[in-house]
Amino acid sequence: MFYIIGLGLCDEKDITVRGLEAVKGATRVYLEAYTSILMVQKDRLEAFYGKELILADRDMVETQSDEILHRADEVDVALLVVGDPFGATTHTDIILRARALGIPTRVIHNASIMNAIGAAGLQLYQFGQTVSLVFFTETWKPDSFYDRIKENADLGLHTLILLDIKVKEQSDENLARGRKIYEPPRYMSIPLAVKQLVEIESIRKAGVLDPDATLAVAVSRVGGGDEQRIVAGTLTDLAQHPEESFGEPLHSLIIVGKRLHHLEVEYAEEFAVDRERWRTVASTVYGCALDD
Amino acid sequence: MFYIIGLGLCDEKDITVRGLEAVKGATRVYLEAYTSILMVQKDRLEAFYGKELILADRDMVETQSDEILHRADEVDVALLVVGDPFGATTHTDIILRARALGIPTRVIHNASIMNAIGAAGLQLYQFGQTVSLVFFTETWKPDSFYDRIKENADLGLHTLILLDIKVKEQSDENLARGRKIYEPPRYMSIPLAVKQLVEIESIRKAGVLDPDATLAVAVSRVGGGDEQRIVAGTLTDLAQHPEESFGEPLHSLIIVGKRLHHLEVEYAEEFAVDRERWRTVASTVYGCALDD
Repeated sequence: MFYIIGLGLCDEKDITVRGLEAVKGATRVYLEAYTSILMVQKDRLEAFYGKELILADRDMVETQSDEILHRADEVDVALLVVGDPFGATTHTDIILRARALGIPTRVIHNASIMNAIGAAGLQLYQFGQTVSLVFFTETWKPDSFYDRIKENADLGLHTLILLDIKVKEQSDENLARGRKIYEPPRYMSIPLAVKQLVEIESIRKAGVLDPDATLAVAVSRVGGGDEQRIVAGTLTDLAQHPEESFGEPLHSLIIVGKRLHHLEVEYAEEFAVDRERWRTVASTVYGCALDD
Repeated sequence: MFYIIGLGLCDEKDITVRGLEAVKGATRVYLEAYTSILMVQKDRLEAFYGKELILADRDMVETQSDEILHRADEVDVALLVVGDPFGATTHTDIILRARALGIPTRVIHNASIMNAIGAAGLQLYQFGQTVSLVFFTETWKPDSFYDRIKENADLGLHTLILLDIKVKEQSDENLARGRKIYEPPRYMSIPLAVKQLVEIESIRKAGVLDPDATLAVAVSRVGGGDEQRIVAGTLTDLAQHPEESFGEPLHSLIIVGKRLHHLEVEYAEEFAVDRERWRTVASTVYGCALDD
């Protein structure tokens, strides 16, 4: 059996009991490095499972999946992924490959940012499509996310924005010399994300992302107890808020839609940079009827 | 500390290790009955935890939350909910109440239908807003879901439809006599859901839900191993498919949007009532370029 097991969002204790049993019973256990380096240390997982883990980078999972699937029709093999196997990064390719090889597959689900984002207090059924925001360069500023946010905003829906991660980047020099030396991973910060959003707004000018009139909620380490951070405010509030106050990566950002309900305002107010401004914008711009 | 702990989607082993530790350490453990009667038996959970559970119906969670929160500032109290605490049924009310009482709260996340639906092979970021479909009666056929599905469909997005559950219903006679005798729970089946969708289409006529040209995927018991069922087809395929082949409740239904990707078609084809028709509609109506 080939198991793909979601690890949840924070640390080694977020695995489910079913997932843990599958890990303990597996002959080989792979850890997807692309996402896993984010939050959980490999040695911490190994100590917890009492088992050695084989690192599998994204390339290996996508293009060399036969290695992972080797003999999985005879012995149990597990692939561990952060979040849920069908979260932001999907694993349909390797499942299709297993299917083609006649290997039975079992997915063990867990929380992912796609549902745990509800912790910000905004109703999940009021979210439209999810978008990704990549690091801009001088010459490459892909802005299709703007159209997606506008589509959601026109319907009054919230938008979850997943922020870029750069792993296994090579410096120009190392790349030119063919040296497989990688830069440390980079995670997009909330202030940088907001800066990029506002930059595109200033070009596209559809009024979707007004720095002082659009509400947003930043989250990191959802479910991570003391490490969890939720910060709410206008885009300007978030851009000017100290970067360290958003906590450790991975960060995500919600653009609040106009169907905002007063209970959502009230819930997220706890996390507001400036409660008064949060309520004022919710009331005057979003039209929420709030108690005094 | 007040813990709200997601149990995941299937049985007692879907709780996370962190969740299990919190249950074991809690002085009182409540089980939300509204959702929990669906999949997990109370006594099975109790045996697994080695702990007695107090049933809390939806009324209790919503309106008598002070009873649940009693002394939670001094001892640990846990409330168990199926799925994730911020899934289809949210628990913001009781968290707001805990906040007002100065009781620290910790949410322990898990998979919910809102992210595990990815198991159907459709990309989560291609889903628009989620809708609910209630049991129609002769005189009450609320159809606002139709507008929501149309909004999603106009953008080419998939729609997750959560199907109604009736619990604690009273017969007219028992209601009239004030007898607190409840009917067995009722779960909307996939064929009934499709019938209701098509009925509203025949009234509203916006062409959003064409019986023979709209693709849909039905899921139940996602992550439940042998109990999981995924069935794909046109609305007509699903309406005519034997009810028992959709598996045990709870059922959910996805209306497939026009941004459908050929990999999504290929993945879900495994679950199709009629593979040939699935591919033909994907290709001719949805415009997916598929291999022969």
